[in-house]
Amino acid sequence: MQLHLSTWLEVERYLEQSNGIILPIGSTEQHSPIGLIGTDAICAEAIARGVGESTHAIVAPTINVGMALHHTAFPGSMSLRPSTMILMIRDYVTCLARPLAGNSKRSGFRKFFFINGHGGNVATMKAAFSETYAHLADLGIEGSDRVHCQVSNWYMCGSVYRLAKELYGDQEGSHATPSEVALTQYIYPESIKQAPLSEDVAKGHPIYGAIDFRRRYPDGRMGSNPALATPEHGKQFYELAVKEISSAYLEFLNAE
Amino acid sequence: MQLHLSTWLEVERYLEQSNGIILPIGSTEQHSPIGLIGTDAICAEAIARGVGESTHAIVAPTINVGMALHHTAFPGSMSLRPSTMILMIRDYVTCLARPLAGNSKRSGFRKFFFINGHGGNVATMKAAFSETYAHLADLGIEGSDRVHCQVSNWYMCGSVYRLAKELYGDQEGSHATPSEVALTQYIYPESIKQAPLSEDVAKGHPIYGAIDFRRRYPDGRMGSNPALATPEHGKQFYELAVKEISSAYLEFLNAE
Amino acid sequence: MQLHLSTWLEVERYLEQSNGIILPIGSTEQHSPIGLIGTDAICAEAIARGVGESTHAIVAPTINVGMALHHTAFPGSMSLRPSTMILMIRDYVTCLARPLAGNSKRSGFRKFFFINGHGGNVATMKAAFSETYAHLADLGIEGSDRVHCQVSNWYMCGSVYRLAKELYGDQEGSHATPSEVALTQYIYPESIKQAPLSEDVAKGHPIYGAIDFRRRYPDGRMGSNPALATPEHGKQFYELAVKEISSAYLEFLNAE
Amino acid sequence: MQLHLSTWLEVERYLEQSNGIILPIGSTEQHSPIGLIGTDAICAEAIARGVGESTHAIVAPTINVGMALHHTAFPGSMSLRPSTMILMIRDYVTCLARPLAGNSKRSGFRKFFFINGHGGNVATMKAAFSETYAHLADLGIEGSDRVHCQVSNWYMCGSVYRLAKELYGDQEGSHATPSEVALTQYIYPESIKQAPLSEDVAKGHPIYGAIDFRRRYPDGRMGSNPALATPEHGKQFYELAVKEISSAYLEFLNAE
Amino acid sequence: MQLHLSTWLEVERYLEQSNGIILPIGSTEQHSPIGLIGTDAICAEAIARGVGESTHAIVAPTINVGMALHHTAFPGSMSLRPSTMILMIRDYVTCLARPLAGNSKRSGFRKFFFINGHGGNVATMKAAFSETYAHLADLGIEGSDRVHCQVSNWYMCGSVYRLAKELYGDQEGSHATPSEVALTQYIYPESIKQAPLSEDVAKGHPIYGAIDFRRRYPDGRMGSNPALATPEHGKQFYELAVKEISSAYLEFLNAE
Amino acid sequence: MQLHLSTWLEVERYLEQSNGIILPIGSTEQHSPIGLIGTDAICAEAIARGVGESTHAIVAPTINVGMALHHTAFPGSMSLRPSTMILMIRDYVTCLARPLAGNSKRSGFRKFFFINGHGGNVATMKAAFSETYAHLADLGIEGSDRVHCQVSNWYMCGSVYRLAKELYGDQEGSHATPSEVALTQYIYPESIKQAPLSEDVAKGHPIYGAIDFRRRYPDGRMGSNPALATPEHGKQFYELAVKEISSAYLEFLNAE
Repeated sequence: MQLHLSTWLEVERYLEQSNGIILPIGSTEQHSPIGLIGTDAICAEAIARGVGESTHAIVAPTINVGMALHHTAFPGSMSLRPSTMILMIRDYVTCLARPLAGNSKRSGFRKFFFINGHGGNVATMKAAFSETYAHLADLGIEGSDRVHCQVSNWYMCGSVYRLAKELYGDQEGSHATPSEVALTQYIYPESIKQAPLSEDVAKGHPIYGAIDFRRRYPDGRMGSNPALATPEHGKQFYELAVKEISSAYLEFLNAE
Repeated sequence: MQLHLSTWLEVERYLEQSNGIILPIGSTEQHSPIGLIGTDAICAEAIARGVGESTHAIVAPTINVGMALHHTAFPGSMSLRPSTMILMIRDYVTCLARPLAGNSKRSGFRKFFFINGHGGNVATMKAAFSETYAHLADLGIEGSDRVHCQVSNWYMCGSVYRLAKELYGDQEGSHATPSEVALTQYIYPESIKQAPLSEDVAKGHPIYGAIDFRRRYPDGRMGSNPALATPEHGKQFYELAVKEISSAYLEFLNAE
Repeated sequence: MQLHLSTWLEVERYLEQSNGIILPIGSTEQHSPIGLIGTDAICAEAIARGVGESTHAIVAPTINVGMALHHTAFPGSMSLRPSTMILMIRDYVTCLARPLAGNSKRSGFRKFFFINGHGGNVATMKAAFSETYAHLADLGIEGSDRVHCQVSNWYMCGSVYRLAKELYGDQEGSHATPSEVALTQYIYPESIKQAPLSEDVAKGHPIYGAIDFRRRYPDGRMGSNPALATPEHGKQFYELAVKEISSAYLEFLNAE
Repeated sequence: MQLHLSTWLEVERYLEQSNGIILPIGSTEQHSPIGLIGTDAICAEAIARGVGESTHAIVAPTINVGMALHHTAFPGSMSLRPSTMILMIRDYVTCLARPLAGNSKRSGFRKFFFINGHGGNVATMKAAFSETYAHLADLGIEGSDRVHCQVSNWYMCGSVYRLAKELYGDQEGSHATPSEVALTQYIYPESIKQAPLSEDVAKGHPIYGAIDFRRRYPDGRMGSNPALATPEHGKQFYELAVKEISSAYLEFLNAE
Repeated sequence: MQLHLSTWLEVERYLEQSNGIILPIGSTEQHSPIGLIGTDAICAEAIARGVGESTHAIVAPTINVGMALHHTAFPGSMSLRPSTMILMIRDYVTCLARPLAGNSKRSGFRKFFFINGHGGNVATMKAAFSETYAHLADLGIEGSDRVHCQVSNWYMCGSVYRLAKELYGDQEGSHATPSEVALTQYIYPESIKQAPLSEDVAKGHPIYGAIDFRRRYPDGRMGSNPALATPEHGKQFYELAVKEISSAYLEFLNAE
Repeated sequence: MQLHLSTWLEVERYLEQSNGIILPIGSTEQHSPIGLIGTDAICAEAIARGVGESTHAIVAPTINVGMALHHTAFPGSMSLRPSTMILMIRDYVTCLARPLAGNSKRSGFRKFFFINGHGGNVATMKAAFSETYAHLADLGIEGSDRVHCQVSNWYMCGSVYRLAKELYGDQEGSHATPSEVALTQYIYPESIKQAPLSEDVAKGHPIYGAIDFRRRYPDGRMGSNPALATPEHGKQFYELAVKEISSAYLEFLNAE
């Protein structure tokens, strides 16, 4: 069930039986000469919808732009400041957590499960969760001490990680990885890109600012060889991630 | 050309021939018992992609959540605070307007054309544009005095407006209109909803806060009869809007 | 009744019979070589006081500086950032909307009627109103769902508009208009200015940033010929605006 | 010379011979049962205009609402948050300090002389000045290391203080003082108020929050007897303050 | 009793008998060629601990970095923006003022006594107190109208001032004073510094921005001769300050 | 070399040979009935000073209060909001990274090495680093693309972790651990606390808001048995951490 394809009446009915919601969050940032700029959002959205279907959970619209300041020296990369992203997440959760108007006995959503496609989002998301819990407490929203936020990084799923290692070994790398590129190829087979990639690929440098990042990682890859990706791999990653994260969501939803 | 389905190399090439970008912006808010919560984002995205195709312009990922605070007493509605939305738009434009790193002779994007699906966004967007121009000047970004932002509301297109009046007369209303619902039916025919609608529909009240709005507009409609919508109407609206806005974009792009 | 010429006891008494307040808001910005920098504040203040007298409403002190960033490349222009102005309006309304201390049965003001003299303020004001309604709800201020804010632009009054067209035709323009200059001449006849104005006057360009604005509108006029203004015209505009806005205020005040 | 009664051409000419500007700042807050809510703004404005005339300095529009949070439990009192006021002052000074567009050899204003009527503003103003200097340095505004802000509290003038002691002794008190009320009586003789005042008047309590303030100072006076004020006294205060502050302004203006 | 050397159980017990807390606040800024960069924090911390011991009050961890923007053109100086410091103090006080969870009958701290070592902090602290009172009221924290904050500047103690005048006369100056340097020598005798100091020392200039400050006060001293300091003087200052401030704290604590 | 025990001349000299600085960051939060509230700050400060000595690095004053919102339902716990902490870190780094005034050829600090004692700080610190890099780039600070920030969590050192497992096995837990308590006992042997601890200790719950945390972890421990701590263990932890982090600092400092 997708929030943007539902009516408010349907959401009202959904809230009678569940207070969980899935929020896909990605990024809009360079993913090497052959990875799509929308890779992280595409992956998060596809997996979130798969998890939504398998668990009968509602899925919010995708957060397409995340915290990718370090990629912004490449054309087409977009980012929120961390301070902006904290406010955005606070606003999202606050709207959805409010008790229903005219029906003060029924709470809004309480379990916010973010399916994330971008490592660079994680720190700011966690900061945003802390800010949000305190904000909800400040507002005195009833039941706000039962509001739980969790981030699930699809690329960190054990099953995904193992398959990536098996298929690509060290060439999985850590940005513009063949596994995420494969997943986008499965979703958008008409958008598979080709470009020459040097054999040498930078790796192992810490991440600081945008100019520094581009100097260290001139074509945007971090130790990865995205040319190894295939749509068939993508299908496998998709299925593993949906399965594993569906379990994680249900566990989160049902935890006290 | 969609930004999220492009690579940074493709964006770099695009910038050699154009400095314009289209940004669809919608909202995630109740649209009456039969309109989709994602109506405004769905319409803005579809039209933006159509305009992008017909004008060879790049289309950024959709801003799915806008300024809809007055709808947040209905379940499933989400909103940014105006102050948050200003920061978000400032961050978006600033990232894209920066000169390309390592290529200081070439500027980033300069013409930002927002295709908007939600009337409630307009005031905050205009405030955000003013804030952004001043911010870019503060940063001393070269050419920042040539950065232009414009909002194009698809539902305000003359051709769209005329067709809506012709098809629906007064029953077009001003929120959860049959024209926008028709457009979503054309895009997502599998998500056409049915629900009883009272014959009487509230209209004519000004918009203040969320509780007040729901008290005045109990089922979310503002003078509209969305039950009149059909997917065929939606196709017509789509084509009119794409045509008219494509012209507007090209005029904006080519203006000095 | 002017707030700044009243005592707190008088305001307490006023609140027993009315919960409406009028807030004049202007701007401090160039108005061509012969229009006063304070034009927008002068007009808003004068009309607000007239409306206050005719409706027995209390009038708050004038907001002299508004959102005029696009004029700030001319000497003497001042502006708030939109983000600052949102906070200012939020602070103003919040103070005045609080229930009276030691008398929790009696609410503060609920109807905030801004009489505005500057088109550039409108978008930010509307954003501020949305932010403020949500803020008041967050604070749990009793009756906050009955707080209403409205902006009334004196230059948009039908009667004013018609007279301006009649007197000046196309030379009314859209900034540093003869109608607003006439009104300032009526209020401050000792401050009527003379300066040569070129016959050609720029018009029709959209408004972006400050540098861009000055490049397009080198003497600050937007299609207007303020030399046509006379104090006698100003008196007519004043009387029309006061009459029309007084009705609008009473309608706003008395609406549920 | 008043900024709001000038044109941008006149300001441009003024800047050829002076880079100083006077900014009156007051407050909108209770001043006991007989003092005007606008007392602090009225006094600051009148004196600022007097100083402007005697020193040929330009006077900006009055800041009518200041930092008066501790008075907001009385009806009609308005206040900015300190954090808002810092942004407002930063915005004001930044606009005025920018170099003139199209004339980069000529700087904007550099000497900002605030004539203040409200003790509660001082701390926040000083914080705002520090924030502003750093902001101007961040923007790289040329000559920003020569921007100077100063606050001059008219009620702290030696000559004013001595006369108040002579006329009123201990009954001068520290809020809603006869000296400031006298000054408003001189400016607005038609707005002299009468109300019974208890003989006992609270004094000596420190100032904390708004509720606490009203509990300690139930009628709003702090040790004062404003009933002693006369318009004739007001004239004396006015003349002393204008004279003393005119000297202070010139010294500030001419200091390196 | 030092907060950081206590357990939460001990704090819970402390709150049964007192609701006062002492917060030392200093700065990290140049103090001339021979004064320590941590002078203000060192002095505030030592005196706060002395006062805590003599009054059985709990002492919070020292705020080591304050508002010292005007010193930041000297190496090693650190500062918060005033706007940041306001948020920091708001956060500190809000945490400590909350009622104890699971024990809603018992309040948190209510009397916040800041012992301050740096004149540049005072304005921002006072702004922060006002902001904080309003914030606590917004949160509806029970008893928030009884929250009191006070700043005690050790260097302004009458006894300290008199001794400084007696020992150093005019050479006490107003920054990097021998009295504060003496106090650091008493606390850290192993960190007594030597460096040549010119006989001439700048004095009497007002404080504006950082570059301006360094131009006017090239070695960082403001009219002072810190070479006169001795650890023995420091011991005297310490004892005087602890004695006088202990009384002030108790008076503050016991005031209604 | 400690910054607060140095003069600005000494810092100027230090910057001729190194651009690295160590910033200890802790927290002020409950650490179970027997752990000190200042545990995280005490540990970070002691280790930072040890690392400073062994590497001849300068050590900034300790950040005593961090991001501990989830602990604030226990008395005596203090926390910054994440949004406040981001501004604080931005301010700290910006001050120290500026080029030296009057010596524009010489940069300020470039390598910021935070030694951290509290897991709850990490996400916000990383968000703050991203915000800061972008802020420095905005300011156009020369060399800002060479500014690097890193966080080193002492409790995550391999050698520390191994010893903790060896000494305490599962009873190390994850908050109020015997290892950190031992370290505070080594530093402050006079502040070793005793209190009865239940044998059962909560563990394994995720961390959400403050009320939720206290409900799940009623005495504040997370799976730990701090009663196992001894000062002798503390000494071992101290030495291991100093050794391992000294290497890490030098590697960070010397990396390009």
